[in-house]
Amino acid sequence: MRYIGELRDGEMVSETYLCKTKQTLKTKAGKNYYSMLLQDKSGTLDAKIWELSSGIDHFEAMEYIRVDGQVVSFQGSLQLNVKRVRRSQEGEYDPADFVPTTAKNVEQMYSDLLKYIAKFQQPHLKRLAESFFADDKDFALRFKKHSAAKSVHHGFVGGLLEHTLGVVNLCDYYANNYPILNRDLLLCAAMFHDVGKMEELSTFPENDYTDDGQLLGHIYIGAEIIGARIRTIQGFPPQLAAQLKHCILAHHGELEYGSPKKPAIIEALALNFADNTDAKIQTMTELLNSGDEKATWLGLSRLFESNIRRTTF
Amino acid sequence: MRYIGELRDGEMVSETYLCKTKQTLKTKAGKNYYSMLLQDKSGTLDAKIWELSSGIDHFEAMEYIRVDGQVVSFQGSLQLNVKRVRRSQEGEYDPADFVPTTAKNVEQMYSDLLKYIAKFQQPHLKRLAESFFADDKDFALRFKKHSAAKSVHHGFVGGLLEHTLGVVNLCDYYANNYPILNRDLLLCAAMFHDVGKMEELSTFPENDYTDDGQLLGHIYIGAEIIGARIRTIQGFPPQLAAQLKHCILAHHGELEYGSPKKPAIIEALALNFADNTDAKIQTMTELLNSGDEKATWLGLSRLFESNIRRTTF
Amino acid sequence: MRYIGELRDGEMVSETYLCKTKQTLKTKAGKNYYSMLLQDKSGTLDAKIWELSSGIDHFEAMEYIRVDGQVVSFQGSLQLNVKRVRRSQEGEYDPADFVPTTAKNVEQMYSDLLKYIAKFQQPHLKRLAESFFADDKDFALRFKKHSAAKSVHHGFVGGLLEHTLGVVNLCDYYANNYPILNRDLLLCAAMFHDVGKMEELSTFPENDYTDDGQLLGHIYIGAEIIGARIRTIQGFPPQLAAQLKHCILAHHGELEYGSPKKPAIIEALALNFADNTDAKIQTMTELLNSGDEKATWLGLSRLFESNIRRTTF
Amino acid sequence: MRYIGELRDGEMVSETYLCKTKQTLKTKAGKNYYSMLLQDKSGTLDAKIWELSSGIDHFEAMEYIRVDGQVVSFQGSLQLNVKRVRRSQEGEYDPADFVPTTAKNVEQMYSDLLKYIAKFQQPHLKRLAESFFADDKDFALRFKKHSAAKSVHHGFVGGLLEHTLGVVNLCDYYANNYPILNRDLLLCAAMFHDVGKMEELSTFPENDYTDDGQLLGHIYIGAEIIGARIRTIQGFPPQLAAQLKHCILAHHGELEYGSPKKPAIIEALALNFADNTDAKIQTMTELLNSGDEKATWLGLSRLFESNIRRTTF
Amino acid sequence: MRYIGELRDGEMVSETYLCKTKQTLKTKAGKNYYSMLLQDKSGTLDAKIWELSSGIDHFEAMEYIRVDGQVVSFQGSLQLNVKRVRRSQEGEYDPADFVPTTAKNVEQMYSDLLKYIAKFQQPHLKRLAESFFADDKDFALRFKKHSAAKSVHHGFVGGLLEHTLGVVNLCDYYANNYPILNRDLLLCAAMFHDVGKMEELSTFPENDYTDDGQLLGHIYIGAEIIGARIRTIQGFPPQLAAQLKHCILAHHGELEYGSPKKPAIIEALALNFADNTDAKIQTMTELLNSGDEKATWLGLSRLFESNIRRTTF
Amino acid sequence: MRYIGELRDGEMVSETYLCKTKQTLKTKAGKNYYSMLLQDKSGTLDAKIWELSSGIDHFEAMEYIRVDGQVVSFQGSLQLNVKRVRRSQEGEYDPADFVPTTAKNVEQMYSDLLKYIAKFQQPHLKRLAESFFADDKDFALRFKKHSAAKSVHHGFVGGLLEHTLGVVNLCDYYANNYPILNRDLLLCAAMFHDVGKMEELSTFPENDYTDDGQLLGHIYIGAEIIGARIRTIQGFPPQLAAQLKHCILAHHGELEYGSPKKPAIIEALALNFADNTDAKIQTMTELLNSGDEKATWLGLSRLFESNIRRTTF
Repeated sequence: MRYIGELRDGEMVSETYLCKTKQTLKTKAGKNYYSMLLQDKSGTLDAKIWELSSGIDHFEAMEYIRVDGQVVSFQGSLQLNVKRVRRSQEGEYDPADFVPTTAKNVEQMYSDLLKYIAKFQQPHLKRLAESFFADDKDFALRFKKHSAAKSVHHGFVGGLLEHTLGVVNLCDYYANNYPILNRDLLLCAAMFHDVGKMEELSTFPENDYTDDGQLLGHIYIGAEIIGARIRTIQGFPPQLAAQLKHCILAHHGELEYGSPKKPAIIEALALNFADNTDAKIQTMTELLNSGDEKATWLGLSRLFESNIRRTTF
Repeated sequence: MRYIGELRDGEMVSETYLCKTKQTLKTKAGKNYYSMLLQDKSGTLDAKIWELSSGIDHFEAMEYIRVDGQVVSFQGSLQLNVKRVRRSQEGEYDPADFVPTTAKNVEQMYSDLLKYIAKFQQPHLKRLAESFFADDKDFALRFKKHSAAKSVHHGFVGGLLEHTLGVVNLCDYYANNYPILNRDLLLCAAMFHDVGKMEELSTFPENDYTDDGQLLGHIYIGAEIIGARIRTIQGFPPQLAAQLKHCILAHHGELEYGSPKKPAIIEALALNFADNTDAKIQTMTELLNSGDEKATWLGLSRLFESNIRRTTF
Repeated sequence: MRYIGELRDGEMVSETYLCKTKQTLKTKAGKNYYSMLLQDKSGTLDAKIWELSSGIDHFEAMEYIRVDGQVVSFQGSLQLNVKRVRRSQEGEYDPADFVPTTAKNVEQMYSDLLKYIAKFQQPHLKRLAESFFADDKDFALRFKKHSAAKSVHHGFVGGLLEHTLGVVNLCDYYANNYPILNRDLLLCAAMFHDVGKMEELSTFPENDYTDDGQLLGHIYIGAEIIGARIRTIQGFPPQLAAQLKHCILAHHGELEYGSPKKPAIIEALALNFADNTDAKIQTMTELLNSGDEKATWLGLSRLFESNIRRTTF
Repeated sequence: MRYIGELRDGEMVSETYLCKTKQTLKTKAGKNYYSMLLQDKSGTLDAKIWELSSGIDHFEAMEYIRVDGQVVSFQGSLQLNVKRVRRSQEGEYDPADFVPTTAKNVEQMYSDLLKYIAKFQQPHLKRLAESFFADDKDFALRFKKHSAAKSVHHGFVGGLLEHTLGVVNLCDYYANNYPILNRDLLLCAAMFHDVGKMEELSTFPENDYTDDGQLLGHIYIGAEIIGARIRTIQGFPPQLAAQLKHCILAHHGELEYGSPKKPAIIEALALNFADNTDAKIQTMTELLNSGDEKATWLGLSRLFESNIRRTTF
Repeated sequence: MRYIGELRDGEMVSETYLCKTKQTLKTKAGKNYYSMLLQDKSGTLDAKIWELSSGIDHFEAMEYIRVDGQVVSFQGSLQLNVKRVRRSQEGEYDPADFVPTTAKNVEQMYSDLLKYIAKFQQPHLKRLAESFFADDKDFALRFKKHSAAKSVHHGFVGGLLEHTLGVVNLCDYYANNYPILNRDLLLCAAMFHDVGKMEELSTFPENDYTDDGQLLGHIYIGAEIIGARIRTIQGFPPQLAAQLKHCILAHHGELEYGSPKKPAIIEALALNFADNTDAKIQTMTELLNSGDEKATWLGLSRLFESNIRRTTF
Repeated sequence: MRYIGELRDGEMVSETYLCKTKQTLKTKAGKNYYSMLLQDKSGTLDAKIWELSSGIDHFEAMEYIRVDGQVVSFQGSLQLNVKRVRRSQEGEYDPADFVPTTAKNVEQMYSDLLKYIAKFQQPHLKRLAESFFADDKDFALRFKKHSAAKSVHHGFVGGLLEHTLGVVNLCDYYANNYPILNRDLLLCAAMFHDVGKMEELSTFPENDYTDDGQLLGHIYIGAEIIGARIRTIQGFPPQLAAQLKHCILAHHGELEYGSPKKPAIIEALALNFADNTDAKIQTMTELLNSGDEKATWLGLSRLFESNIRRTTF
């Protein structure tokens, strides 16, 4: 397959892509044309169909389409001038090619998570974690495929798992080095801290905010999911439940970042650092990987409020 | 009964009060003495026992005690010099005398709330509201007695009901005047907006933050309570549930005030205004009522970031 | 008349509109063309004259022009390609058709205001209010026609009256429900709170900031207008004058919103809530009414710092 | 006279001071005593009357009293233990001794101001300035005696004049060095920028916020005073009036510092810098002069958000 | 020479300009064209080469090029349509014509600086200042030519000198009027306050941030330069060194403006005011000079958070 | 030795302590007394000498004194009523008993640091690190004994080393898990990130801000120290020097926390997270260790803007 990330100015292309969006617009001369956003796992590409004539079959957004056309450079970005288009047929393409996916081994990462759970000593936390990750096969399937974001960081299949494991790993390191931390509470909170994203974001290839996601947010949703499951576990200590849910609620660290409570216990504080560290290092990594390879300075990043520089010497 | 609010400098007192707090301290000369905070429904009073000799029986904080002593003025505030003290016996006092209570008619207010519910047209919202206010007698009992705050505004028995009705009344007015508002959703959200305070604050006479209250906060708790009840109501539309919970989550209006989401629908916006209006006008009313009656300017209020003035002309 | 709000892609139009702005620009090919913003009471429309040839008479911005052309869709918005244009002649059009106007009955609203004044008990406030609303016919005429904003909320003929009455109504409701409020002071302050907008904004069809408006702002201007009139009313109590002017100065509630003082008296606080409630509910109403009717989510609103959603279930 | 600033620990004092405040308090033993704040031009002093017996005549706050007593040091500050007290009689003291006063020559400073006015070229600004400073003898008298603050900077008799001249001098320097500035507008605005303080603060010895001062503030009051006077000057250009008033309104530079408008013209910007420079340098000068002479570091200043240091090397 | 600032719509031009940037872009029709930014001392101009045919010789960004073409107006701005282009040869142009330059006399300004140094009384500060400004000829040469900014204020050859002298002059005025200030320390700090800009910005015609400039900033760089030189001056008092470096570090006045310390001594405070006054008045002057000459209001300035107005009456 | 942390109410004490501060104050009755702060490694204790009679020898602050007295409880805190006092003689006490000291093994921690340096691959960074930690014996001695703060976190002997190693360890973990990070640069920056504290804070037992510390701060001082040493290392790549110094300058992460630059490279970002994580977890650990052991909630912490809770279940 010819991936979007490998296309070069001037090339002729004949390939299937996912049509993420489709608009009908008008040229200055008043002629209709289509403007589309094509996607595969390597990225996205603007595409235009200037001549709505023969060879342009009917298709809709979120369908897989086979396009013939030429890559051109427009205002510094590549664009595809499409000459022919039709819906692709099932079998003609592999859906896995059209969504960005973690570069890491999903099963290995999931297995790492399970190993952490196996070592939990607090029985109720172990029961809770197992009830999701070990016993709930549907949850496991969905957890492995979910992304951790619409864009920004870990916005790909397996992203939620990769980010969750990254945070759990950091928390494990903290627990080894700062003995005041309660390992089981901290690691359990880390495993579930972003579980609300499974309802906040729809699955790929859409990967967009859901209605519930926008109205309630993953912080509330996650705490509610855990709270509901806890009520099914006999003898779960109420104080432990409150502190676990507190860790989830407080994991953004500041009210203005959407946490309704600031960290009050040290595990909530540690989780906030682990989440922030993994998320921001990954965000800057993605930013550095996506920037012009030859540039030292990549321009102002609003998120980091700084002109970002590659480390070179 | 001689209420705290009516005591004057120099008077001799022999009365039962609730001992809210009790500390053992030392004078500069190294002698032990007791410092207490006494409370009845009219307010609180500092009290001291300088001589720990005969006549001073054993007692603990949160007990009702019978004190004999003299009211003195110290640094502008009244204080009770206690000469004799003993535990009061049940029957000797009426617990209702020792907690601040709404000046309004509780049953009338509750009946007003029920009338609003009776007029709901959306069946699921009606069912939800009835399931709490009409069908759940224990909830009704607790709701009528709860306060809406530890201090600040509506911090008295019946305060939660009084504030809730005040907000519902405002929302009813809004719904009459701004036809774009969905009355049932808005009024239902108003009724439940502070329901989480029933778990955030303990009951009187303690009326203090609970463990859950500090770790989770009434915004999260309230939304979770409503969410759990909704799951028991067959056919409750998921979108309606999300929007109702959103109204509760967003009712503080700003992330930095503890709402994990800003208002996204117009009913959430209206609820935020109604809550803020009723709360702040009540807060300033309590502030004006508690200040020196003869003073025009009452000094800087941190909450209002202004020197507060009585309206006079 | 064919209103702008009713035009559809592809239609031929021959109608008079107000030419709000006019620019001479150049195509990439270096040819001059005109770009205009046309306005009638239903909205505004981009228009272009690509061929500056015969049929294109001379005209200026802020003139009424008769245009012949075709509606096209360009990048998601409608645009008028004008083929012929000339100045419209008086009599050919009704100026009332070209400015957005309140949907409510102006005379009814004004009469409602006067009824409130008739019930004032404080003689000096009554005198002051009558001196403007009842006795000053020119003021009444101008007040009825003024808008309350350049854009945002109530930016139409009658908007100042509609918003003022909305705020007065809310304040009347507050005065009924919170007896600590001084009704006459609160309602009088509500009537005059935005009176400075009559000098801050020019009249329709221009409805733009004046020099004084930009340099001084309606908060200062309004207080100064009231202060000057008060000096002509014998025996007006100075303390009352100061508190009334304070309400006007403080009605934005926060220094960073342009109020030079924060509310110090409870009527100023109440006025701030009434103004904010009416303004923000109207703003969101206009936003919901102007958005795509079929969309549930209307996109990020900077003012509300939230993605705005229609209430649907 | 024995000034407060010269008193030392242990000294016996027999002198007249202004009694700024007077409170009746109780000792721990329940005995009444008086706590007073005494003032003369050199500063203020806490005073106590522990024995309310013979020798203690009746007196009230804001009266001049003759006290006999001993200076003691209490918790690092000096305090006067008063043994005898009586009201002082007129003639026994000079009121000028009891209010802090500028160290500069008032008539010289006022004459400097008048010289600036004499050089104004714009006739309306000259007329306006003369109408206050040259023609209005009562205004001149009051202006010379007023302070520029309750505390902070220039809080003494002549302080308003001293600060005003300091700002005018800076503006004159600016006008010489930045030719884009309109000298007459800038200097006229500088002269009047704090004129509202004459109504915001009462005169000495009280020197406290007035009702109008707290409700309206000197920024609004000053602009209104100038606006009212301008209306009596025939032919005063409206645009000039608006820009002059704008300079007064905007002289605090930021909305959150109480200016309802940010500087829009360059003279308003320059006035803001001149006011801020003179005020802050004077504030730090007063802070350095009042601190412990032997200390290099004077402790954290909230205003400057820094630990303040004497310059020494 | 035909300066960019004097070009008018429609004119034919044949002139040498500095090609500041050069991009190869594509038209909608897919044809390559060049987009350039041309610069001379009077300003910058967009230029396009639509036809990459004969007459278009090779050239690179930051080269001097001879262009033939026509000035056109595009979307309100002028643009040059280039028909022919070639590299200019040395001798054909004067590099001084292509960089914006102070309108003031550089040698006179530098001489003014030296006169201030000659009057220093503190020997170590005098030695330090002489070691740069008097003894270090290379430094003097570079200091005279440097700009004080990439854009904003004093972004031209001689700008650093002009701004430095402006700040020194203001400080000299302060020292005359506020005797508490230590003149030598203040003026010395003023001279060096922006010396770090010599390494933060590259020289003209590039005048852009250097690697060190972006990573370290002129505040740190400047203090380090002075610190290193001080270590070479025997007997320089360490406290004086610390206070001088403190003035440089604190001259932005607030942490959020990049100063790692807030002013702790009064000279640091005064320097902050002088720097801010000169910079902001110059910024607004440049803004007023660059705006449309016929417009009274120049539109919203983000820096000043205000719609900027010319002073007119 | 009887450590301060082990004293109980009512006990008689006869022991040597460090007299951190000493003030002469007056009782209400006008009698002089001494108020002191005594310190040993376990904490501090208020002490009073009420009777300045025989048995009270002369002594000064920062001297070791032998006190006889009784422990009393005053307003919830312990206090020592001193009856006799004299200077302790050398040999009578061990200075190590009077300063708080890390609980970890200093030599082991230092050896860990050296092992990291031994593995550096970049020769110039290795040379730089060795020049301090391996070659400079005086530096090593001072580094091992320094604290990392006056109060807050790691404010004890060995605190700088303990915190530095904690940060280096975290960075080592990051480098293992996020391969984009340059290990040598990150670890070298971590080692030096707080080196400026060696000049910002004086040594124990004083451990207070120095003049340089207050005027310049450890961020600037640290970068300057490293910059000066780098200039002595032949061939040190300038870009590497700039990036290393950038990491030190940016390690507080935000301008408002005193960093003059925000992180621009990913190592600076990672260092900021490591520093913040180690500092905040340690701060909360110290807070939990110092609070009442029996309390679950420890009260509002200003630093964490939250009521802090022990983790219990």
